[in-house]
Amino acid sequence: MIKTLHNDQSIMQQAIKQAKKTMNEDLGGPFGAAIIDADGTILSVSSNSVLGDHDPTAHAEVNAIRMAGQKKNSHDLSGCVLYTTAYPCPMCLGAIIWANIKTLVYGCRPEDADAIGFRDDFIYSFIEKGRSDHSVLSIKEKHRDECLKLFEEYQSKNKTLY
Amino acid sequence: MIKTLHNDQSIMQQAIKQAKKTMNEDLGGPFGAAIIDADGTILSVSSNSVLGDHDPTAHAEVNAIRMAGQKKNSHDLSGCVLYTTAYPCPMCLGAIIWANIKTLVYGCRPEDADAIGFRDDFIYSFIEKGRSDHSVLSIKEKHRDECLKLFEEYQSKNKTLY
Repeated sequence: MIKTLHNDQSIMQQAIKQAKKTMNEDLGGPFGAAIIDADGTILSVSSNSVLGDHDPTAHAEVNAIRMAGQKKNSHDLSGCVLYTTAYPCPMCLGAIIWANIKTLVYGCRPEDADAIGFRDDFIYSFIEKGRSDHSVLSIKEKHRDECLKLFEEYQSKNKTLY
Repeated sequence: MIKTLHNDQSIMQQAIKQAKKTMNEDLGGPFGAAIIDADGTILSVSSNSVLGDHDPTAHAEVNAIRMAGQKKNSHDLSGCVLYTTAYPCPMCLGAIIWANIKTLVYGCRPEDADAIGFRDDFIYSFIEKGRSDHSVLSIKEKHRDECLKLFEEYQSKNKTLY
């Protein structure tokens, strides 16, 4: 890990540079992200690699979180700050919260991403309107009783939550 | 790929079995998922590996989507159905929509996960209430002008959207 302290403009510039690189290699969309540890260490600089990795989850923020988790040998990124060149989609926002990151700095607004054809706002809208629009996603409950047994087994073993 | 057709009860049972395995190996929480292709092929059976992989994004659904993307050599899982032992969190729901999956079958309800201490509903609530609760996540806009240049470069190259 590089131990140099960075100002947040230089961090965002690194995220932009990485995004340009992978965008121009046709690996993914124009999105970059970086994660800074509590001590100012840059843990990860990443970008969208959805096309190159054949992975719809490989957004810049998710990639940066996965990389930082490997660096810290932990799923817990408490105290870290995530920089992203654009406001995160619901998937990435969820990932950020699960990683226990409490501060998020973004560059472009949701409407900026919409203007170049990315539909992040559309997914927020689906969630905010109760997730009932079947033209987006049809959600069905089945086999709940069998699945509940898994939760019961988890509880009976008194597993540590993460 | 196994070409046998499966009924959805047996698919959910495979997801449950995989979740039990990794839960009992202390690799992650009690959650499993599976993805079925349009022709009935099982593309992936996966489970939560957040602890084992030091990856806060390694939920069962995300893992199943990544694995299916590798199998199909594409980020596009149109026509696939995702089975999950519990209602997906916002991160996983976003991943499902980005993957172009249109049908989702879940077992346990959000309140069932809450009852064993998982805070999925908490993240939905943060989103639904406008993402303004700073005790959850402080979201700041910075360096928008520089980041917009990335979008302009993307547009000027007339890149294919995914």
